[in-house]
Amino acid sequence: MFFKVKTPEEVIEILNGFGPISMETIPISEALTRILSSEVVSEEDMPGFSRSSMDGYAVRAKDTFGASDSLPAFLELAGEVVMGREPEGSVVSGKVMRISTGGMIPDGADAVVMLEYCHSIDEKTIEVSRTVAPLENVIGKGDDFRKGDVIFKKGAVLRPQDIGLLAGLGMQNISVYKKPKVGIISTGDEVIPIDQKPEPGQVRDINSYTLSAFCLQAGAVPVNMGLCKDNFEEMRKKAGKVLEDCDTVLISGGSSVGSRDMTVKVLESFEGMELLVHGIAISPGKPTIIARIGRKAVFGLPGHVASAMVVAEIFLKPFLARLAGKIRASGDVRQSLQAKLERNVESTGGRDDYIRVKLRERDGKLFAEPVFGKSGLISTLVEADGLVKIDRNTEGLYKGQTVSVMLFGPFEQEE
Amino acid sequence: MFFKVKTPEEVIEILNGFGPISMETIPISEALTRILSSEVVSEEDMPGFSRSSMDGYAVRAKDTFGASDSLPAFLELAGEVVMGREPEGSVVSGKVMRISTGGMIPDGADAVVMLEYCHSIDEKTIEVSRTVAPLENVIGKGDDFRKGDVIFKKGAVLRPQDIGLLAGLGMQNISVYKKPKVGIISTGDEVIPIDQKPEPGQVRDINSYTLSAFCLQAGAVPVNMGLCKDNFEEMRKKAGKVLEDCDTVLISGGSSVGSRDMTVKVLESFEGMELLVHGIAISPGKPTIIARIGRKAVFGLPGHVASAMVVAEIFLKPFLARLAGKIRASGDVRQSLQAKLERNVESTGGRDDYIRVKLRERDGKLFAEPVFGKSGLISTLVEADGLVKIDRNTEGLYKGQTVSVMLFGPFEQEE
Repeated sequence: MFFKVKTPEEVIEILNGFGPISMETIPISEALTRILSSEVVSEEDMPGFSRSSMDGYAVRAKDTFGASDSLPAFLELAGEVVMGREPEGSVVSGKVMRISTGGMIPDGADAVVMLEYCHSIDEKTIEVSRTVAPLENVIGKGDDFRKGDVIFKKGAVLRPQDIGLLAGLGMQNISVYKKPKVGIISTGDEVIPIDQKPEPGQVRDINSYTLSAFCLQAGAVPVNMGLCKDNFEEMRKKAGKVLEDCDTVLISGGSSVGSRDMTVKVLESFEGMELLVHGIAISPGKPTIIARIGRKAVFGLPGHVASAMVVAEIFLKPFLARLAGKIRASGDVRQSLQAKLERNVESTGGRDDYIRVKLRERDGKLFAEPVFGKSGLISTLVEADGLVKIDRNTEGLYKGQTVSVMLFGPFEQEE
Repeated sequence: MFFKVKTPEEVIEILNGFGPISMETIPISEALTRILSSEVVSEEDMPGFSRSSMDGYAVRAKDTFGASDSLPAFLELAGEVVMGREPEGSVVSGKVMRISTGGMIPDGADAVVMLEYCHSIDEKTIEVSRTVAPLENVIGKGDDFRKGDVIFKKGAVLRPQDIGLLAGLGMQNISVYKKPKVGIISTGDEVIPIDQKPEPGQVRDINSYTLSAFCLQAGAVPVNMGLCKDNFEEMRKKAGKVLEDCDTVLISGGSSVGSRDMTVKVLESFEGMELLVHGIAISPGKPTIIARIGRKAVFGLPGHVASAMVVAEIFLKPFLARLAGKIRASGDVRQSLQAKLERNVESTGGRDDYIRVKLRERDGKLFAEPVFGKSGLISTLVEADGLVKIDRNTEGLYKGQTVSVMLFGPFEQEE
């Protein structure tokens, strides 16, 4: 079968054909960073009653008009609003009630005078030395939200204050998209479990640990299926199981051509398999395979860990965000920083190059130093803070040029 | 007791007096975003043997010198390197061995010629049409790291590739700082559990849900201790229990002065209590209390949720990062974006003002629109994407000015 290498844009377009998986209802205390699967409408006014936003005296604003230090108003104390209770009594003209922040505004009152502008003259008389306007220092019923208001749109990512609002409205559980379950198979005859001592020619399983952590970081649930030899039957069986259990599958290829061919053969053995991508015009990461089996996407990732990470950052991250229900178009879910490039970087045309860079801060400015090295080396990834793209229509980037650095994680300057 | 309101810098300085809690050893599969409590030294060379970075033929580079399309070299096939095994045999002058990416370089060979420059003439003869230099397409033993190399410094925050490297070195467990356990008490006679229907004057417990989620976001472990009436005995008992169980305590104050006074009284009842902060020159968030009891910090946070969140962002987040072992100075652990302010914002001198802003993207530029509203309203926080500081030495910010927006969470532009 002849397959043309796809552009990154074509690959993103193909991945945009996949959508959110399914929904579940969870307690709001577990909902941080989860994504709403439907809009949320307030079932009540919030706050449910008018409250004071200050400690002071609830008054009829009119009774304070003209009051000042030199010409205070003298009003009669009619009682106190107890926190958490409906006020006993109301405020009629010429009277006030003591009220604390958060207390319920009594009937008749329409404003609160702050404590510092009030003096108790005797048990019954309060001297008010300040004019307040109606509604001053009052949070009205429904000022936050009214019954029927849409408080969150579908697709909203929940932050601490959003969870606080749901709590305030008494919503103990909320409907969100499920986190995508990602099955990870690491292949290659040379790869051994990490608790074993490698014999000559063997290496420990770096890729499934890196990819598992990557999926966690992306808000997905990794299911590490362990190692698989480059053996058709074994790989076929494992892939079949993962396809049943998970929402998407990553096969971290052995790095050799033979290993990659085996992955394709295994995928082809599934009925209705559609090979969507066989090679992408990026470097590193070209030998990437993406197939559709049923409604699920299967990724055959390059064996070199740096190549696999670039493909994961550029394609897998936005793909997982889509599965998780993010409404934004793919490609915009990463965080980036602007920095000045420290040296020229040449590039071959015809493909997008992604170079690893290390960030440094000098005199309050950020600089990006390219980290060169073969994509089979993990040290280049460990040293780097992020990736810089060299577009396939340019010949390279120049020293001093401002570039956008896609961060691997929060950047923290070394001491 | 007379207490001077502290500047934000003084408060940060005080909080910098607290340090990481303690360490624990965890499996690397659970170590994403965790912070190393000691440096990590490689116990072996990585890779442990020289590997091919390409599919091709392992050669003595010298044998290819001068080889080209028009003048190829003819070399004898001496066998194949099997993946994951020590090569059987070696490469002597005039001979080659077939090798796959990741295969172990046989003795005698010092380079690999890529497959596409080699042709099999007969069973025993390979035509090589390219000159390779010594070490070309070879990843040498120890090229990533050598035995004894420091691969991570103490305080490093682990990312996916870092976990991959630990896996590659066979380190199944790693020593990290413990996540700080944060006890959260929500006080106020007017506050009720979220599964109850409020009577007039009552509100549901927004603050402990908001603060719990905030702690989770900051990498800490929240322990929600539930509600507490403004009652000395009850609060004293609860605070005592939390101080035993947790690394730090947040008391989300009832919003009234009486409730705040009660918090101070309860704190004072603990032997050796040192009141470190009683009021901070910021708005909102001024009525914040910080005390030291034993080696633990106790925060009395303002009852208004927007005030509590500002204090949490500015002081609690870097404090929790310190407890969690981050080596950076407090105050630099947040993420920010630059944006143009959409309108003038005035400010009272003498205190740092934090305004809530909503971000919008127009023509590829970011704009920050202030969200005004009383700090008792949670809607202002829910609408906002982050905070902008107005320094106490300025009179305000101007429309069109570029400001730094501290983000509440990852910013995602609406469709």
